[in-house]
Amino acid sequence: MALIVQKFGGTSVGTVDRIQEIAKKIKRFRGEGHDIVVVVSAMSGETNRLLALAEEMQSQPKPEELDVILSTGEQVTIALLAMALENLSCPARSYTGWQVAVRTDSHHGKARIQEIDTHAILKDLAEGRVVVVAGFQGIDGEGRITTLGRGGSDTTAVALAAALNADECQIYTDVDGVYTTDPRIVESARRLDKITFEEMLEMASLGSRVLQIRAVEFAGKYQVNLRVLHSFQDGPGTLITLEEQTEMEHPVISGIAFNRDEAKLTIKGVPDIPGVASRILGPVSRANIEVDMIVQNVSADQTTDFTFTVHRNDYQRALEIVSQTCKSLGAREFDGDNKITKVSIVGVGMRSHAGVATKMFETLAAEGINIQIISTSEIKVSVVIQEKYLELAVRALHSAFELDQDVALRTENRIGKLD
Amino acid sequence: MALIVQKFGGTSVGTVDRIQEIAKKIKRFRGEGHDIVVVVSAMSGETNRLLALAEEMQSQPKPEELDVILSTGEQVTIALLAMALENLSCPARSYTGWQVAVRTDSHHGKARIQEIDTHAILKDLAEGRVVVVAGFQGIDGEGRITTLGRGGSDTTAVALAAALNADECQIYTDVDGVYTTDPRIVESARRLDKITFEEMLEMASLGSRVLQIRAVEFAGKYQVNLRVLHSFQDGPGTLITLEEQTEMEHPVISGIAFNRDEAKLTIKGVPDIPGVASRILGPVSRANIEVDMIVQNVSADQTTDFTFTVHRNDYQRALEIVSQTCKSLGAREFDGDNKITKVSIVGVGMRSHAGVATKMFETLAAEGINIQIISTSEIKVSVVIQEKYLELAVRALHSAFELDQDVALRTENRIGKLD
Repeated sequence: MALIVQKFGGTSVGTVDRIQEIAKKIKRFRGEGHDIVVVVSAMSGETNRLLALAEEMQSQPKPEELDVILSTGEQVTIALLAMALENLSCPARSYTGWQVAVRTDSHHGKARIQEIDTHAILKDLAEGRVVVVAGFQGIDGEGRITTLGRGGSDTTAVALAAALNADECQIYTDVDGVYTTDPRIVESARRLDKITFEEMLEMASLGSRVLQIRAVEFAGKYQVNLRVLHSFQDGPGTLITLEEQTEMEHPVISGIAFNRDEAKLTIKGVPDIPGVASRILGPVSRANIEVDMIVQNVSADQTTDFTFTVHRNDYQRALEIVSQTCKSLGAREFDGDNKITKVSIVGVGMRSHAGVATKMFETLAAEGINIQIISTSEIKVSVVIQEKYLELAVRALHSAFELDQDVALRTENRIGKLD
Repeated sequence: MALIVQKFGGTSVGTVDRIQEIAKKIKRFRGEGHDIVVVVSAMSGETNRLLALAEEMQSQPKPEELDVILSTGEQVTIALLAMALENLSCPARSYTGWQVAVRTDSHHGKARIQEIDTHAILKDLAEGRVVVVAGFQGIDGEGRITTLGRGGSDTTAVALAAALNADECQIYTDVDGVYTTDPRIVESARRLDKITFEEMLEMASLGSRVLQIRAVEFAGKYQVNLRVLHSFQDGPGTLITLEEQTEMEHPVISGIAFNRDEAKLTIKGVPDIPGVASRILGPVSRANIEVDMIVQNVSADQTTDFTFTVHRNDYQRALEIVSQTCKSLGAREFDGDNKITKVSIVGVGMRSHAGVATKMFETLAAEGINIQIISTSEIKVSVVIQEKYLELAVRALHSAFELDQDVALRTENRIGKLD
């Protein structure tokens, strides 16, 4: 008998029928003797409907009042799910964020959870009830309703699991786990049984469709066992867990991630003096443009080249900003390219194995794919290539690192054998 | 400079445009130096939409969870109105029921207000903000959301006005006041400048379209000056106030009320023994059928006849129940009629004037209208007549009591002259 926190997103609770399916699933878990706390999102489309209503009133809705409106989405779902459970003779009780209470700071629209009062929830669990909690929302020190930002329900679930010291936090989605890469590109892509928090973070481009990154960070920090599962199909899903818990045969590479919609901007001949990087990125950041990769190589003749990537939608705006910066810095020239893509190999195993990057570069070279930029972290190697090579690169790498094989069957792709 | 509580119903806040109109109106009042607390309902149609969703999940939605769902309706409106006011540079802040807090008992779906914490509201008013409060909802001792029942926003407004010791509670509606009778039936029906709480209560059939009866009771109990006004037209409306405050020339009759959709049931030859009334009405009440009039006349030969009226929609069910009761009581026979209507004359003046009822009966007799049942209270005389005579009866009475005349012009229809 375990204490399990289960989170169901907007699609999983998108209709009355689906909520009834979810209720049946929860009842089965209860039948196995588990204590269940369920976190739900707003019914799919509801948050967008409410946002549109607020924006019809105010083009930039006041964040404090917008949160009052948006939080109604989950409030409807919790009550509907509690009703569905009661229909199955499964006692249940709904909680809004403030009823729990999920205490947050006052950053409306992107509030951070500070503390969760588990008193009432534990009492309900002890009395045999399923507890249904509204995700995405909390209450600040002034008693005002806050929201955690899009995808915040994942964070609510993980925070609740941490506060309740739950055995597992299960995130139900429309995929049955985390894959070695996108199955739409590589048919033989495999579902991973396990992945570490760090790998999951680096796989953001794959993982963000599955799990909110903040929730993964939170789970890592509080050592919450996180499992990604399919809402309407049975299966073990993917367990996201601490590195220490993974077995020795953990592969060097866990997966191939990619970002399709990147664009790169380069300023060439930048004076190589302190503060240049912030003078380039400051205006970009103030324009609310998110920057992904940042690459600067060693300088030659007191100047250097500075490259960064942004989402393709922000490319034109970023280019205008960079043209200004180029002038004010006295840099030689600038250019950009929005027909690029980023491909990354991710794995905790590569920490102890220098040959991984080489193998990646060789594989790409053998396919005639030119590498434009290289950037690495401890457990990831990313390259920027021409967009047209995306599928070719991902398939070649997936095959080269034998990701379509069971871990035990791979020829040399294991820690211990390679080291 | 006064403290005014203003309540706007679902139609008045039914669209973003209308909420903007309301915001302009509120700003005008602010400009006159008044402190304003606004109570709003859910946007029109929203409560029904939410109820339908709940009933799709559970044919008899669990009241505790239904309240969680229904309360989201007003929650959206308060934030939209606060935004609209901010758009007009009129500082405002929204409050849900629990944020105020409006403390109620735990009768979900028909909770009664026990206490209102005015601390936060008074602070906001002192700081120059318009306070926007969600009507219809509160929080019980367990921290659960409650609702006050349909039309509960009126009650919220009156309770807030009482708690804040407001100078006036203004209920904005789609009519410009309370009329001597339904203007759709009598063209010359006049808007009343003033009416007493008691008269308003007895005018239920007219008043219920304008004001929730519970709110009127509440206002009377706590001596809150209540004014009914049109949301989108200027005008003085009708002030509902204490009898003591009315002038000497208060007319004997204030208005003609009627209930269209009545049905009557009669059990004849009922043994005239104690407890009979409750044995007849008990089963009706347990079937959740509301009873309006109850008439029992003196008995002859140890039996009596017992008549009551119900809403026409409940007629068939009531008839079945009565047929059972008739058997078990050993009564002689029963019958019913669902082609009847109730017409009432209402006025505090009639307390001191016995001739009013006579004048009513004479007026109806002169039109050839047969009276089936008569029932009186201190300030009302009601008769049941055949439905087809409704319009004729109302027009004849309206004219006989000179309700189309200004009070000062009426020939003999004034206290003091008649007494």
